Amino acid sequence: MTAIEQDKSQENSALHFSALEPPRRYLFGPGPTMVHPRVYEALSKPIVGHLDPYFIQVMGDVQQLLKTGFGTSGATLVISGTGSAGMEAAVANFVEPGTKFAVFANGYFSDRLTEMAKRHDANVVRFEKPWGETFTEDEAREFIRREKPKVVAYVHAETSTGALQSGQAICAAAHDAGALAIADCVTSLGGVPVEFDQTGIDVAYSCTQKGLSCPPGLSPMAISARAMDWLRARTFPVRSWYFDLKLIYDYSTVSHRYHHTAPISMFYALREALLVIAEEGIEKRWERHRRCHKVFVKGIEAMGLHMHVPEAHRIATLNTVGVPKGVDEAKVRKRLLDEAGIEIAGGFGPLAGKVFRIGVMGPLATEDNVQFFLKEFKRTLSAEGYSI
Amino acid sequence: MTAIEQDKSQENSALHFSALEPPRRYLFGPGPTMVHPRVYEALSKPIVGHLDPYFIQVMGDVQQLLKTGFGTSGATLVISGTGSAGMEAAVANFVEPGTKFAVFANGYFSDRLTEMAKRHDANVVRFEKPWGETFTEDEAREFIRREKPKVVAYVHAETSTGALQSGQAICAAAHDAGALAIADCVTSLGGVPVEFDQTGIDVAYSCTQKGLSCPPGLSPMAISARAMDWLRARTFPVRSWYFDLKLIYDYSTVSHRYHHTAPISMFYALREALLVIAEEGIEKRWERHRRCHKVFVKGIEAMGLHMHVPEAHRIATLNTVGVPKGVDEAKVRKRLLDEAGIEIAGGFGPLAGKVFRIGVMGPLATEDNVQFFLKEFKRTLSAEGYSI
Repeated sequence: MTAIEQDKSQENSALHFSALEPPRRYLFGPGPTMVHPRVYEALSKPIVGHLDPYFIQVMGDVQQLLKTGFGTSGATLVISGTGSAGMEAAVANFVEPGTKFAVFANGYFSDRLTEMAKRHDANVVRFEKPWGETFTEDEAREFIRREKPKVVAYVHAETSTGALQSGQAICAAAHDAGALAIADCVTSLGGVPVEFDQTGIDVAYSCTQKGLSCPPGLSPMAISARAMDWLRARTFPVRSWYFDLKLIYDYSTVSHRYHHTAPISMFYALREALLVIAEEGIEKRWERHRRCHKVFVKGIEAMGLHMHVPEAHRIATLNTVGVPKGVDEAKVRKRLLDEAGIEIAGGFGPLAGKVFRIGVMGPLATEDNVQFFLKEFKRTLSAEGYSI
Repeated sequence: MTAIEQDKSQENSALHFSALEPPRRYLFGPGPTMVHPRVYEALSKPIVGHLDPYFIQVMGDVQQLLKTGFGTSGATLVISGTGSAGMEAAVANFVEPGTKFAVFANGYFSDRLTEMAKRHDANVVRFEKPWGETFTEDEAREFIRREKPKVVAYVHAETSTGALQSGQAICAAAHDAGALAIADCVTSLGGVPVEFDQTGIDVAYSCTQKGLSCPPGLSPMAISARAMDWLRARTFPVRSWYFDLKLIYDYSTVSHRYHHTAPISMFYALREALLVIAEEGIEKRWERHRRCHKVFVKGIEAMGLHMHVPEAHRIATLNTVGVPKGVDEAKVRKRLLDEAGIEIAGGFGPLAGKVFRIGVMGPLATEDNVQFFLKEFKRTLSAEGYSI
């Protein structure tokens, strides 16, 4: 084929692809959630270089603005990957071969923490509970006292189950044992209080596409002074160069020496999403989510459905609703998507087929939107044979 | 502080941050480069979920469209991180403890490959040359025959030096030795031919913000059938869960089972950037870059400056220009940025202070833009004491 012929065939091949026209979706799943128009506008602003003084300022603003949601006066930074990248950064940087790593295991993401820690040669010990349950303060303390780990990890808001785990006793017991406490805050940051400093968390990671209502692509982290000391004292090299927090911290906040090329547009978006939150006020935002959660639960129970997690341990932004007997949850989800453009998620692992996972967060967390969702959900369940 | 008082202080704190208004930059550095308006438009389209049928289609389109730039009929996929994440994925998946890993070392990115391979417990052997030089076919064959590595890695287009390394002899010798060949194509994909299949590359990774003219944030990869077999036969777990290519390949192309939440907006942007390229025609695009490169070099030499890399081994899209005696390259760069909004980069490592790194790629690769750059560059050099 000559170059000209090949160009022709390539021109033709471009014609096989339609223009990008994403369908309108109401994102009532566990994330990604809806995005504020200002954040989309920020995404489309012209990029500058990753070492440009303007971009250094954007990174600095993001780090500053993140402190409020995390509830910390300490260090924050952003990993150039999604929430799972933050998890891997947390594990890779605080595990050396043989490090005793204790996991509070009550859902999918604690299993993922386990898997990552094993791959990094940690000596993993697990305290297991059924998916959806949480750990009491006494149980947490007793486990950590008995196991004497070097690192303790738990999932603050478990996306797979809808359960919120208080970190107070876990972190205190970890510190008593001389251990660091890692908290998965992927589903909590921006939607419910994290209280990093007050809880005594040492390492928290999150994502952009849930409580922060930004598209996915970055993973914000908070790191305590104790954890920073731990990092500096570390001698065994971090297996992952890309996730090496010392190098990322240096690029982001100290020397601004090149590490990798940060995703400029995503930082623009995250900065704008954090400004939208700051303008609303984080306390007001949390309260809005709590209020909508109550409306949601009331509506769900009025349909005769039940919430999977006991009231005291629910995540305000992410609800797990039991699938009623005789209803095929996959069909409900497909019909909701096809007929109403509404995305929700199903359960997986031990909860496969047993729960719907329904997020009410960010721009969707208004009473009107909850009522809209409940109406469509009810209609769809009826169409799939559930008599209310 | 009461909740209301705190909200007030947070509202005030939002006021400390100005609106996002990035300065206008002409990105003549090694990347990120300028972005087509259609790509910015794609970035700001409403997101759908990462398991939405529409998004699965977008991922599939991206994989399909990537084949042309890579020059492969085989597997392509996209890592949810920047180019360095692609490098880490390549190393982490094809190294097991003790794997003999041969690096052709003639610049910064081969040093980074070395560093990553060591962190993954490879037994690294290096063939070193000064930054800017390349390896002949005989040298490449002789090194691989002597060392008998399991994996061979080289940098196709070395961003730190401007040198283009032919992979033909390296890949052939690697295959003769039963080894896999990894090629860093971060600076070549979309700008100059990669010819993955024809060269015999097994694993190539790239980025979005150079030859593809998309913002940074994703790392496209191409993987040969031999490399896929290698992956399937691997028994030692990949240290990195986030970069585990078997899991990513399964999510992206086979079962679409959840692995991580892909950066939806960045995939939209990459799809659009690839469509822009397909519409131009990849051969025409390469030719446009070659043509502009010639105009650039002619202008540079007319100023009495010299190109760092010999003519036969230059990357068409990324030029290294010697800093003339008595000129402070950092001052030149600062003045160019401040007065003309033009970003270029300096050298680092052994080339610190010795070269300018000047990219002419994507939307900037037109004769008019090159002339605009040359005029501003000349004016700036004069202002910094260089008499032409």
